[in-house]
Amino acid sequence: MKLWDKGISIDKKIEKFTVGNDRELDMHLAEYDIIASKAHAKMLGKVGILDAGEVEKILKELDELNEQLEKGSFVIEEDFEDVHSKIEFELTKKLGETGKKIHTARSRNDQVLVAMQLYFKENLKDIHMKTEDLINVLLKLAEEHKEKLLPGYTHLQVAMPSSFGLWFSAYAELLIDDIYLLEAGQKIVDQNPLGSAAGYGSSFPIDREFTTKELGFSDLKYNVVAAQMSRGKCERTVTSNISSLANTLSRFAMDVCLYMSQNFDFITFPDELTTGSSIMPHKKNPDVFELIRGKCNKLQAIANEMILITNNLPSGYHRDFQLIKENSIYAVENMKEILDIFIHSISVIKVKDVDLNDEKYKYLFTVDSINDLVMQGNSFRDAYKEIGEQVQNNTYKPSGSKKHTHLGSKDNLALDEIRSKLKK
Amino acid sequence: MKLWDKGISIDKKIEKFTVGNDRELDMHLAEYDIIASKAHAKMLGKVGILDAGEVEKILKELDELNEQLEKGSFVIEEDFEDVHSKIEFELTKKLGETGKKIHTARSRNDQVLVAMQLYFKENLKDIHMKTEDLINVLLKLAEEHKEKLLPGYTHLQVAMPSSFGLWFSAYAELLIDDIYLLEAGQKIVDQNPLGSAAGYGSSFPIDREFTTKELGFSDLKYNVVAAQMSRGKCERTVTSNISSLANTLSRFAMDVCLYMSQNFDFITFPDELTTGSSIMPHKKNPDVFELIRGKCNKLQAIANEMILITNNLPSGYHRDFQLIKENSIYAVENMKEILDIFIHSISVIKVKDVDLNDEKYKYLFTVDSINDLVMQGNSFRDAYKEIGEQVQNNTYKPSGSKKHTHLGSKDNLALDEIRSKLKK
Amino acid sequence: MKLWDKGISIDKKIEKFTVGNDRELDMHLAEYDIIASKAHAKMLGKVGILDAGEVEKILKELDELNEQLEKGSFVIEEDFEDVHSKIEFELTKKLGETGKKIHTARSRNDQVLVAMQLYFKENLKDIHMKTEDLINVLLKLAEEHKEKLLPGYTHLQVAMPSSFGLWFSAYAELLIDDIYLLEAGQKIVDQNPLGSAAGYGSSFPIDREFTTKELGFSDLKYNVVAAQMSRGKCERTVTSNISSLANTLSRFAMDVCLYMSQNFDFITFPDELTTGSSIMPHKKNPDVFELIRGKCNKLQAIANEMILITNNLPSGYHRDFQLIKENSIYAVENMKEILDIFIHSISVIKVKDVDLNDEKYKYLFTVDSINDLVMQGNSFRDAYKEIGEQVQNNTYKPSGSKKHTHLGSKDNLALDEIRSKLKK
Amino acid sequence: MKLWDKGISIDKKIEKFTVGNDRELDMHLAEYDIIASKAHAKMLGKVGILDAGEVEKILKELDELNEQLEKGSFVIEEDFEDVHSKIEFELTKKLGETGKKIHTARSRNDQVLVAMQLYFKENLKDIHMKTEDLINVLLKLAEEHKEKLLPGYTHLQVAMPSSFGLWFSAYAELLIDDIYLLEAGQKIVDQNPLGSAAGYGSSFPIDREFTTKELGFSDLKYNVVAAQMSRGKCERTVTSNISSLANTLSRFAMDVCLYMSQNFDFITFPDELTTGSSIMPHKKNPDVFELIRGKCNKLQAIANEMILITNNLPSGYHRDFQLIKENSIYAVENMKEILDIFIHSISVIKVKDVDLNDEKYKYLFTVDSINDLVMQGNSFRDAYKEIGEQVQNNTYKPSGSKKHTHLGSKDNLALDEIRSKLKK
Repeated sequence: MKLWDKGISIDKKIEKFTVGNDRELDMHLAEYDIIASKAHAKMLGKVGILDAGEVEKILKELDELNEQLEKGSFVIEEDFEDVHSKIEFELTKKLGETGKKIHTARSRNDQVLVAMQLYFKENLKDIHMKTEDLINVLLKLAEEHKEKLLPGYTHLQVAMPSSFGLWFSAYAELLIDDIYLLEAGQKIVDQNPLGSAAGYGSSFPIDREFTTKELGFSDLKYNVVAAQMSRGKCERTVTSNISSLANTLSRFAMDVCLYMSQNFDFITFPDELTTGSSIMPHKKNPDVFELIRGKCNKLQAIANEMILITNNLPSGYHRDFQLIKENSIYAVENMKEILDIFIHSISVIKVKDVDLNDEKYKYLFTVDSINDLVMQGNSFRDAYKEIGEQVQNNTYKPSGSKKHTHLGSKDNLALDEIRSKLKK
Repeated sequence: MKLWDKGISIDKKIEKFTVGNDRELDMHLAEYDIIASKAHAKMLGKVGILDAGEVEKILKELDELNEQLEKGSFVIEEDFEDVHSKIEFELTKKLGETGKKIHTARSRNDQVLVAMQLYFKENLKDIHMKTEDLINVLLKLAEEHKEKLLPGYTHLQVAMPSSFGLWFSAYAELLIDDIYLLEAGQKIVDQNPLGSAAGYGSSFPIDREFTTKELGFSDLKYNVVAAQMSRGKCERTVTSNISSLANTLSRFAMDVCLYMSQNFDFITFPDELTTGSSIMPHKKNPDVFELIRGKCNKLQAIANEMILITNNLPSGYHRDFQLIKENSIYAVENMKEILDIFIHSISVIKVKDVDLNDEKYKYLFTVDSINDLVMQGNSFRDAYKEIGEQVQNNTYKPSGSKKHTHLGSKDNLALDEIRSKLKK
Repeated sequence: MKLWDKGISIDKKIEKFTVGNDRELDMHLAEYDIIASKAHAKMLGKVGILDAGEVEKILKELDELNEQLEKGSFVIEEDFEDVHSKIEFELTKKLGETGKKIHTARSRNDQVLVAMQLYFKENLKDIHMKTEDLINVLLKLAEEHKEKLLPGYTHLQVAMPSSFGLWFSAYAELLIDDIYLLEAGQKIVDQNPLGSAAGYGSSFPIDREFTTKELGFSDLKYNVVAAQMSRGKCERTVTSNISSLANTLSRFAMDVCLYMSQNFDFITFPDELTTGSSIMPHKKNPDVFELIRGKCNKLQAIANEMILITNNLPSGYHRDFQLIKENSIYAVENMKEILDIFIHSISVIKVKDVDLNDEKYKYLFTVDSINDLVMQGNSFRDAYKEIGEQVQNNTYKPSGSKKHTHLGSKDNLALDEIRSKLKK
Repeated sequence: MKLWDKGISIDKKIEKFTVGNDRELDMHLAEYDIIASKAHAKMLGKVGILDAGEVEKILKELDELNEQLEKGSFVIEEDFEDVHSKIEFELTKKLGETGKKIHTARSRNDQVLVAMQLYFKENLKDIHMKTEDLINVLLKLAEEHKEKLLPGYTHLQVAMPSSFGLWFSAYAELLIDDIYLLEAGQKIVDQNPLGSAAGYGSSFPIDREFTTKELGFSDLKYNVVAAQMSRGKCERTVTSNISSLANTLSRFAMDVCLYMSQNFDFITFPDELTTGSSIMPHKKNPDVFELIRGKCNKLQAIANEMILITNNLPSGYHRDFQLIKENSIYAVENMKEILDIFIHSISVIKVKDVDLNDEKYKYLFTVDSINDLVMQGNSFRDAYKEIGEQVQNNTYKPSGSKKHTHLGSKDNLALDEIRSKLKK
C-alpha cells in the first residue's frame, strides 16, 4: 500500500530491499510526524486550503493516533512502507476526501525532514542534559577523592604525581567542550525545513513562518534547496557531535579498564558491574566499561559512514538518504543508553589507596626535586642536569610530593570554575 | 642538539623517523611559540622567579627572533628537532644562565599545546571570515541570476523547476551551518592550556590567569590533565569543523562539474579555469572544481585519521600525538587555500540560458499542474491521479512555471533573511 | 542463565546493555556452533577425555538440535545470553553430567572464534560464486550490445567514443580483481582456531590436527595467541574484501543512475525496478540502484569501524570484540542480498540507441581525426595542434568513429581473455 | 610548459593549486616512466609507427635520462607540471620531430597508470620481503625466549600463563595473513594497463601483448575502461593491504609500550631507542614504538581516504585521481621505513624475568587447577565450581603452571609449522 504505487506489481525481494527496516525505525519518528502534520494542517487552514471543519477533524484524528502511540497500540503494518503512508492512510480511512487533503503542499521528503529534525532537537537536548548530569557526578567524585594521589603517566611511563581529583575532574572539563559542540548541533537542527516539498518548493501559498512558530523552531531553513540538503547535513552534524562525546567517554573507559588491571589496581567496581569467564573462575572483568569503550568507538565511525553515503552526490534528493536515517537514530539512541550506564557505573566506583612509596613509583617526584633546586636559585636546566645525574647513578632519593598551588593543579582543582563554565 | 639528550648517540635513521617533518611544520608555529614564551617570561617575572632585568632581556631576544621570522631569515637548522629547542637555544646562546631560565615551570608539551591553540584560534577566525566572504559572493550571484530558471532534479531525474537564484543561495545558507560549527570550535580552542607542564602541573607558584589575559584567551582550560588531553581534542574538533565546511564545498563542486558537462550545459568558466588534455584538443576540463572536490574529500577524511591515531590511548601524553600536528596544520592551510580559489572561481562563473521548453524537461511542471487542479477544489490525491494518467497516456501538456510565492522559494528567495543569520 | 553467573543479581538495564542483540545474531552461527561442538566432542573421545558412549550421546543430541534448526523450531530464549549457553544448556538438560563435559578443554571465546570462521568460510564462498555469476551476466550483456556506441567521458566532459560492450565488460573485469581479494580472504579464514581456549591454550592433551580435518579447514592457526587475535583480523579482512567489491558495485550503480537521467538517457529499466514520487506523478526513479549505491557505500565504511573498535587494544581478548560480530555478519548478509538484486536488475536493463551525431557529441572524434593525420606521417604533436585549431576556429568536422582494433578496445573486447582470468 | 597549454595565461595561484606537489612525488615515478616509455617506443617500432632509427634514438635518450636519475642529476624544473611533461620535453629538445612522436597512441593518463603500477609492483614485492624478514626475526626471538613465562591477560585482567615464545610467534603467524593479502595485491597490480589512452583506447594498431611482455607484467588489464578505472582500485587495494599489515604492527607496538610501563616491566630497550623528557630527567620513553603505533594508525586511515576521494564518481577519469597518487606513495614509502625500524628495534629488545609467583599473578593458574580435577574424573563444570569457591573464600592455592602439550601452546610452539606456511 505505497502511496506512489502506479498499479504495477513489484517483486517481493526488491520490496524488502527498498523498504529495509524503515517500519521499525519510523516508530522513533511517529510522534514527530503527528506533531508536524498537525502544524501543517493548521497552516493549510490559515491560508484557506482547508476549511476550519476539515482542520478540526484532521487534528482530532491525529490526536487519536497520538494516543494510540502513547498507549503502545500504534503499529505500522507490513502493508505500509513507512510511518508517513500509515498515518495518511488512517486519515483517509476515517475522513475520506478530507484525509486525502493533508498531503496538499507537502511531500514525503518534507515529512521525513521535519520529523527527523524534531527528533534530533528533542534528543540532542536530552543528551545535553545527561552529559551535564555526568559532569556533575564527576565533579562530586573529584571533590570526594581530591586527597587521594595517583601516579601520573606520560608515554605509559611513571611521570609525576596526579590524583583521583585531577582524574575525575579532567573528564568533567573535557565533557564541557563536547557540550559546546552539542550546542552548535542544537542550533543547526533548530531550523524549520517544512515547506521545501520535494526540494524545490511549490506554487501553493503556504505560510512557513506560521509552521515555524507552531513547531517551536527558533529559525527557518529558508531556501528550499538548502532545506532539502539539510537532510544529510543534520545527520552528519548530529553524529559528529555525538562522536566527539563518544571519544571522551571511550578514553575514560580505557583508563577504567587499565586501572582495574592487577598491574595498576587503582580502582574496582561492585560485582554487578563485572563479568566472569566460562573457564576462569577467578575473573571479574570490566565488561561494562569495555562495551562502553567499544560502543563509543562504533559511534565514532558513524560520521565517516554518513560522509561515505552522501559524498559526491549532486544536489537534490537521492534514495541513498534513506540509509542515513538508521545510522543517526542508532547514534542517538545508543548515546542515551551509554550515558545512563556510564552515570550509574561511575557513581559506584571504588577508589583504592595507591601506595606512591612503592619502588616502581619512586621517580614520580623528580620534577618536584628539581623545583626545590630552582627555588634555591639554580636555573631550571642546571637543576635538571643534577637530578638527572642522581637518577643515572642511582643515588636519587624522592622527598615525596610538594603541594601544587597553581590553578587547576592537584591541590587546587578549580572545581567551581569548571562548574561555572556550564553556565556560560 | 636535543634538549633531553642524555649523551647517548642515536642512530641517524631512528632520528629521522622520530623527528619526521617537525622542523618544516613548526615554521607555522614559530610565531606562536614566541608569543607564548613572552607571556610565560612576564608571568615568571610577576611571580618572582625571574627578576625584572631578566624578563626584559628575554623579551628583547624574543622580539629579535620575531623580527627574523617576519623578514624570513628565521631558520630551524637540522641540529634542532623542533622550533622550541631552536628558540631556547638562541636565548641561551645570547643570554647564558638567564636564557636557560625560560623553561622554568613549563614543559615542551606545554609549549606545543599553547602554540597549537594560538595557531588554531587565529586560523579558525581566518577561515570563518573567508567563509563569510564566500557566502556574500553567493548571495550576490543569487540576486544577480534570480530570474534564470534551471531544472530541479531528484534522483538525478527531472523533477520541478528550480533557478540559479535558488542554487547559489542554497549553498550560502548551508555554509551558515558550517559557521555555527566553526564558532563552537573557536570557543573550544579559546581556552588557555599553558601551565599544565607535562600534564600534571607543577609545584611552581605560577599565575595561569595572568598568562590567560596576556595571551588574549577568553577562558582557561583549568584542570592540567584536561589541558594536556585537549591535545587531540582540539585537533579533532578543528578538523571535524573543517570537514563539515569541506563537505558543503565538495558537493557544490560536484554540481559545478556535472552542470559543465555537455549533457547539462548550464554553466561554463573562462579558459583560465579549465584545462586541456594531452590527446584531445577540444577539451575544457573543470580541473579546478574537480580538485576542490577531491581536496575537500581528503579533508573530510582527516577527522577519522585523528580518531584512529588517538583512540583507545589511556590518558597522559603519548608520542603518537606528534603526528596529529601535521594533519591539523594540513587541514587548516588547505582549507584557507581552497576558500581563496573557490571565491575567485565562482565569482567568474558564466551562467547559461537553459531552455526549459526542451522536450526532456517537459514533466518539470506536473506539480504545478496538480496544484492548479487543487486550487480548483480537488483533493491533492485525486489531482495527482489525474495528471499521472495524462503522463501515462502521453497527453500531458506543460503549462509553464507558476510563480512560487512562499518564503524561500524560487520567486521569493529570502536573501535578506539568510544574510541576517550571519549576525545572530 | 549465564554460564559464568556467580549467583549475584545483575541489573536488567546493564544486562540488556551487555547482551545486546547477540541472541538475534547468533541465529546465523547456531549451525556452525553445532558442527564445531560435534568435532570437539569427537576429539575429546579420541584423546580419552570422553568415552565412546558419551561422545555418541552428545553427537545425537547435537544432531537433534540441528534438526530443530533446519525445521525453524530452534529458538534462543531470553534466558540465554547467546547460542553457546543455549546449546550447552540443552545438552546438560538431556544428558546431565555427560552434557556438562562438552565444555572441557575449550572456552566460549574458542566457540565464537571457530563458529565465526566457519560462517565466513561458507559465506565468502557464496559471495565468490555470486560475483562470478554477475561477471558472466555482464560479459553476456557486453557481447549482446557490443555494436552499440556510447559517448565516453573524462572529467564528465565528452571525450572519445565508447560502447555498451566496453562499459559492461569493464565492470566484469574489475570484479575479477575483487575475486582475487576474496580468495585471499578465503585463505585467511580457512585456518582452524579451535583449541586456543581463552587465548592461551590449556593443559588438556587436545588434538588440534584432528579437529582441523574434522571441520574441513585447510590449515591451522597454530599459535593460540594468534588464534585468539585472529578474532578481529578475520572480521577486518572479510569486511575489507567485501568493501572492495562494494566499491566496484557502487561505482557501477552511480553510472546507472546518471545514465538514466533525462540528460543522458542511455538506459532504462522496467517499471518494477523504478519508483514513483508522492507529489510528482511522472517520476520513474532508479531507487534500486540508488540503494545499491548507498548500501555499498555503507559497506565500505565497515572496515574502518572495525579498525576503530579494535585499534590500540593490547593483545588478549576484550569484550569490545563482541561488537564486531554484528558488523561483519551485517556486511556478509547485505552483500549477498545486494549481489542477488544486482544480478536480477542488471539482467533486465534496457539499452537505448544513443545518437552520437547529436551536436553535443561532435568532438568525440577529434582523436580519431588526429590519428588519421598521424597515419599520414605527421607527428602526434603537430596533428594535435592542427585539429586543435580547427576546434578553436569552429571549423572541425567529425568524420565518425574509426574501427579500434587493439586488444581491449571497443571493437575488440577480448571477452574470452577476460573470462579466462576466472580460471587462473 | 604544460603540454596541453592552449596559449592562455593561467593565474599563478591556480597553477600552484592544480599542480600541487606532483613534481616532488613524481621523482618516485621517473624510473618507471622511463621504462614504460622505452617499451612503448619499441612497440611503436614493431607496429610500424616509428622506424627502427627513431626507436633507437629514443631508447638512447631515455637511457641517458635514466643515467641522470641514477646519478641524482635528474631534476623536474618548475617549468614542468610533472615528470611526464619533463621527459617528453627532453626527448623533443634532443630529437626534434622524432621526440614528438613518442606520445603517439598513448595519453598522459596511460603514462601515470603504467608508471604507478610498475611502482606498486616493485614496492609491494619489497614490503613482502621485509615482512618475511620480520617474521623470521620474530620466530628466532620466540625460539630464544620460549622458556620465559609471562602472565596472559584477557580484558586486561590476569588470566592464564603465557610466554615470550607465544607472544613473539603469535605476531609472526599473524603477519603471514598479511602476506596472503599482499599477494592478492601483487596479483592485482601485475596487469598491464598501457594502451587504454584516455580510457577508451584508440584507432592506432598498437600491440598490447608486446608491451605486456616487455614490461614483465604477468597479465593484461584488457578492457580499456577497466584499465583506466584500475586507477583508484590499485591504490585502494595497495593501501588496504598495507593497512592490514599496519594494524598488526600497531597492535604489537601497543603491547611493547604497555609492557615497558613500570606497572608491567616485562621488557626494555637500549637507551638509543628511548627518549627523555624536557622536564623529567628520569624518563626513558618508548617513542620509537609509539611512533610506529601512531604511523601505523595513520596508514590505516588512508584506505578510507581513498574511498572518500573516489566514491560516487561516475566512470571515466576525473582530476580528483591526481590526489590519490600522494596518499598511496606515502603509504608505500612509510611502510618500508616502519618495517626497517621495527626489524631493527625488535631485534634489540631486552626480555626481563617476570616473577609469576607475585601475589598479583596468583590466579593465573586456576584453569590448570580445574584441569587437574577434570583429569581426576570430574566434569568441567563441577571442577570450575569448586575452584571458583576456593577463590571466593580466599582459600585458593596456585600449584604453578602445568606443561601445555597441544599444538600451538606455550610448551609446543609449532614454530616450524608456522615457518612452513611462508612457503605455501
